[in-house]
Amino acid sequence: MTERLDIVGIGNAIVDVIAPVNDGFLAENGVAKGVMTLIDRARATELYAAMPAAREISGGSGANTIAGAAALNCRTGFIGKVRDDQLGRIFAHDIRAGGVTYAGPFAPEDADEETARSLILVSPDGERSMNTYLGISTALHAGDIDEALLERADWLYLEGYLFDTPEAKEAYARAIAAVRRGGGKVALTCSDPFCIDRHRADFRRLIADEVDLLFANRDEALSLIETDSLEIALGMLSREVAIAAVTLSGDGAVILRGKTRTEVPAQAVDVVDSTGAGDLFAAGFMAPG
Amino acid sequence: MTERLDIVGIGNAIVDVIAPVNDGFLAENGVAKGVMTLIDRARATELYAAMPAAREISGGSGANTIAGAAALNCRTGFIGKVRDDQLGRIFAHDIRAGGVTYAGPFAPEDADEETARSLILVSPDGERSMNTYLGISTALHAGDIDEALLERADWLYLEGYLFDTPEAKEAYARAIAAVRRGGGKVALTCSDPFCIDRHRADFRRLIADEVDLLFANRDEALSLIETDSLEIALGMLSREVAIAAVTLSGDGAVILRGKTRTEVPAQAVDVVDSTGAGDLFAAGFMAPG
Repeated sequence: MTERLDIVGIGNAIVDVIAPVNDGFLAENGVAKGVMTLIDRARATELYAAMPAAREISGGSGANTIAGAAALNCRTGFIGKVRDDQLGRIFAHDIRAGGVTYAGPFAPEDADEETARSLILVSPDGERSMNTYLGISTALHAGDIDEALLERADWLYLEGYLFDTPEAKEAYARAIAAVRRGGGKVALTCSDPFCIDRHRADFRRLIADEVDLLFANRDEALSLIETDSLEIALGMLSREVAIAAVTLSGDGAVILRGKTRTEVPAQAVDVVDSTGAGDLFAAGFMAPG
Repeated sequence: MTERLDIVGIGNAIVDVIAPVNDGFLAENGVAKGVMTLIDRARATELYAAMPAAREISGGSGANTIAGAAALNCRTGFIGKVRDDQLGRIFAHDIRAGGVTYAGPFAPEDADEETARSLILVSPDGERSMNTYLGISTALHAGDIDEALLERADWLYLEGYLFDTPEAKEAYARAIAAVRRGGGKVALTCSDPFCIDRHRADFRRLIADEVDLLFANRDEALSLIETDSLEIALGMLSREVAIAAVTLSGDGAVILRGKTRTEVPAQAVDVVDSTGAGDLFAAGFMAPG
C-alpha cells in the first residue's frame, strides 16, 4: 500500500447517454446547443422520454482524464460518488477496467438520488449538447475522501465542475491536505465558464492558495480574470499559479511557468469529434515523461 | 385501440454490453468465439469483471427485428420481460423511442433476477462472441401476455431463443391463440441451432401446427430436419410450413411457398459487421410492401 500513484482525480462520476438528433429536436425541446447544461431529475425524465434510443458509456470530465492517463500507463486513482445501482456498477466496472484504482464512494441503493447521467444529444454537424443530471455525484463530502489513497499521489487532479457546493469545497480542502501530507501537488481544471461564473471568488482563492497546475481553455481563462483580453488573462494567470496550461483549440496551447511562456502549435488534423479533447490534453500533460 | 398493428414480437428483452477484446482474452476466459452462449449470474459477474470498459445498447434478437420493422414504418408492438430497474428502463426507453408499443411486462424492482444482458466481446476480425445472462426475461409466462395487443396484430413474430422453458411455451400458446382470434398470422425465427437441439420436437410441432412463416438460416434448417443436406431440409420445410425463408449468408436466401421456390441472390457489399443481419432480414421480409 506504500506504492506511489502518479495521479488521483476527484470529479463527478457520470454515465453518458448518447443519441443522435437533428437541430429541430434541440429547438423543440429547449436544449442549448453545444454546451453543458445542468438539469434536475424532472427535466432529465422529460428529456430522456423525448430523445431517441441511446447508448450508455461511462463518462465524466475528470474520470475521462484519469482513464486517459491510465491508458498512457500512469498509475491512477479516482474518487467520485455513485449510487450502488446498475449505472453505478457500470461506472465502477468501466473505470476499473482501465486500470484505475476506484473505491467509490458508493451511496446505498436506496439513496434518494441515482447515479449521475448526462443526456448527450449529437447534432448532424457533430456538435454535442450535454444535459447533465448530477444525482448522487454532488453528494460527495469530506468524509468520502480516501485520504490514504491521496497521500500516495504525486498529483491530485480536481475537476471544476464538482466545485459547486459547500460540501464539495470542504471535500476538496480535505483532499488537498492529504495530498500535501504525502508530498504531492495539486492540479485543477476549470471545466466550464458557467461554473466559474457561479464561484469565481472561491476559484480564484483556490488557485492562488493551493493550485500548482491549472488547466483552462480560452473562455474559462477570460471568465476567471473577468476580461476580454487573452493577454491580460495570461499575464494574471502567470502571476497566480506556478504552471498554467491554456488551450486555444485550433490555435494550440500556451504553457505559462512564471515568466516563461511556451506556445504549442496545434497539429493539423481532421477533427471528427472534439468531445473530451480538453480532458485528454490534461491527461497527456500530467503523464510522467 | 382498434387500430391494427403490422407486427407484434415476443422475445427476450436484453441490454447488450459491448467491448473490444483480442482473441487471447477469449481463450483465457473460456469464451467460445463467434457464437451465443447462455451464462448464469455467477459467470456473468465473473466475465464482466474481466472484460474492458463497455458501452450499453438495447438489444435482443426479436426486439431488434421489431425495432427494424418500426424503422421501416411498420406499426409494431413488443412483449418481453424486464425488471423495473435502470437497465429495464433503458430497454423500455430505447424500444419505445423507435415507435414500438411496449408495455413490458415489468417485474418489480425487488425481483431476484435483473434485466437480461448480453456481454458481447468483439474480436479484432469483427467476430462477436455473445455471453447472455437471461435474468428476468425467461420468466415470461402466459399471464404476462397482452392479449388485447395481440388481437390487433396482423403478424405475431416469435423468437426461438425464448422458446426454452415450459412457461415460455405456454406463453407462446396463449399469444398464438390471441393473434388467431384477431385474424393474424404467426411467424417464427429459429434463432439458434443449439436452441433447436434442445427443443427439436416442440419446434417441429409448433412449426407444423401453428407457423405460417418460418425464418431459418442454413445451420438452423439442417438442425431442425436433422440432415446434412440443404436440399432435403428445404424439401421438408416446404411441406411443413406455408412460407419458409432460409438465409444462406453469402449465397443469398431461398423463399419456399408450397411448391414454389424463389432464390434471392445476395447483393455484393463489403460486410463490416453481420450482427443482426438475420434480425433485420426478418424485419424487411414482414414489412408490408
